[in-house]
Amino acid sequence: MITSTTNKQMKHIVQLQKKARLRNQENVFVVEGPKMVEETPGELLQEIYVSESFAPKWDGPVTEILSDAVMKSISDTTTPQGVLAVVKKPQYSLEEILKKEPAHLLLVEGVQDPGNLGTMFRTGEGAGVSGIIMHRTTVDLFHPKTVRSTMGSIYRVPFYVAEDWKNTIQQILRQGVCLYAAHLKGTKSYEQFDYHKSCGFFVGNEGNGLSPETTAMADELLRIPMEGKLESLNAAMAAGILMYEVSRQRRN
Amino acid sequence: MITSTTNKQMKHIVQLQKKARLRNQENVFVVEGPKMVEETPGELLQEIYVSESFAPKWDGPVTEILSDAVMKSISDTTTPQGVLAVVKKPQYSLEEILKKEPAHLLLVEGVQDPGNLGTMFRTGEGAGVSGIIMHRTTVDLFHPKTVRSTMGSIYRVPFYVAEDWKNTIQQILRQGVCLYAAHLKGTKSYEQFDYHKSCGFFVGNEGNGLSPETTAMADELLRIPMEGKLESLNAAMAAGILMYEVSRQRRN
Repeated sequence: MITSTTNKQMKHIVQLQKKARLRNQENVFVVEGPKMVEETPGELLQEIYVSESFAPKWDGPVTEILSDAVMKSISDTTTPQGVLAVVKKPQYSLEEILKKEPAHLLLVEGVQDPGNLGTMFRTGEGAGVSGIIMHRTTVDLFHPKTVRSTMGSIYRVPFYVAEDWKNTIQQILRQGVCLYAAHLKGTKSYEQFDYHKSCGFFVGNEGNGLSPETTAMADELLRIPMEGKLESLNAAMAAGILMYEVSRQRRN
Repeated sequence: MITSTTNKQMKHIVQLQKKARLRNQENVFVVEGPKMVEETPGELLQEIYVSESFAPKWDGPVTEILSDAVMKSISDTTTPQGVLAVVKKPQYSLEEILKKEPAHLLLVEGVQDPGNLGTMFRTGEGAGVSGIIMHRTTVDLFHPKTVRSTMGSIYRVPFYVAEDWKNTIQQILRQGVCLYAAHLKGTKSYEQFDYHKSCGFFVGNEGNGLSPETTAMADELLRIPMEGKLESLNAAMAAGILMYEVSRQRRN
């Protein structure tokens, strides 16, 4: 049993929780709670840590038992759920994602709130997206808060972080995917387009929206009508409404 | 200028930020940031506090200037935006809310996350809801985080906190409003109902969903189809998808 918070392994996990750069270098991330650990595909599981008091209730594999104080010190939450795992990042190629037809993509440019990105994955799974493409300025998908708010979708929704955004979008367009951008200049409402064929939606940063360069690459501008005096919807909500419209049209 | 964090008025504001009971007793709440203060209807504004460094940029009314340290001590955020106001709560009667026809209601039972409730108000305004009815176990609408995430909708979406939930629902039903509950036992997908007439949606607690008693009062059970292995959507997302379906149907 590990009882010291200064244990080298434990200090390393704290760093993995905090630093996207270290997660990138080692290609791993941290998940917490029995549900998330159980949903982790076996081939991705690297290490499983269980707290002393939770151990009797846990019948999965265990790398090391930790004292409750040590578990608390490495957990990202104030009330740890007793089990934490170091997990290899799932990985997908753009080609693999684009194989599924008709495509249903979400293209995320610079969303900064981990909860918003996680909710996009969760809702995206429900709406049946074929993949989520992220600009490299988007918040890290493997941030502990993002991971938590995906509710396991992080293992089931294919994704791709575009190092070269423009080139990636061109590759998607060349596959015949029609790309839409929600924009104030859009004249047609989102439900007036036909999403039975391959399609994708750009979603921008919470404060600034989409960059003009990205907007310019969209095939069509659309708007989500808003009553009242609202300036905008929450970014994840806007994405969810669009993705569920695709799902609705393809069902009917 | 107030320069002491132990000033009586300042200590009172800190308590108003923290305690729903005090907000209820005094029928006021606290809003922060120039945007929220500017959107506050004049008749609701009670006191406006501006920080020393923000004062030159603020041309609205001022009750007192505060030193930056005092502003930081009474703010709910880590980086205060320089202006904070004590505001009278808006108030609506159920009768007033039910006057608008066709009704488009959201009935919230026990949502606990302030961000979720705030997002329901924000999205509800965009989708044109006629009112949001809350069970008294729902998180306080005037919690600083809820207020923030409404993005001003708190002033524009009529709401009602039901002390007697069952009686309130019966009153709504008697007005001819058709009430829907998202439920695993629902066989028809949400878009298969006609929402041109008065309608309302029950939304339950994040972890436990709707109580059986509330579910039993719904006219219809519906489901939001989900692909993948997802157990549920985020509560605010589910509400948003339903409200925007009403908006879509009524537009077309």
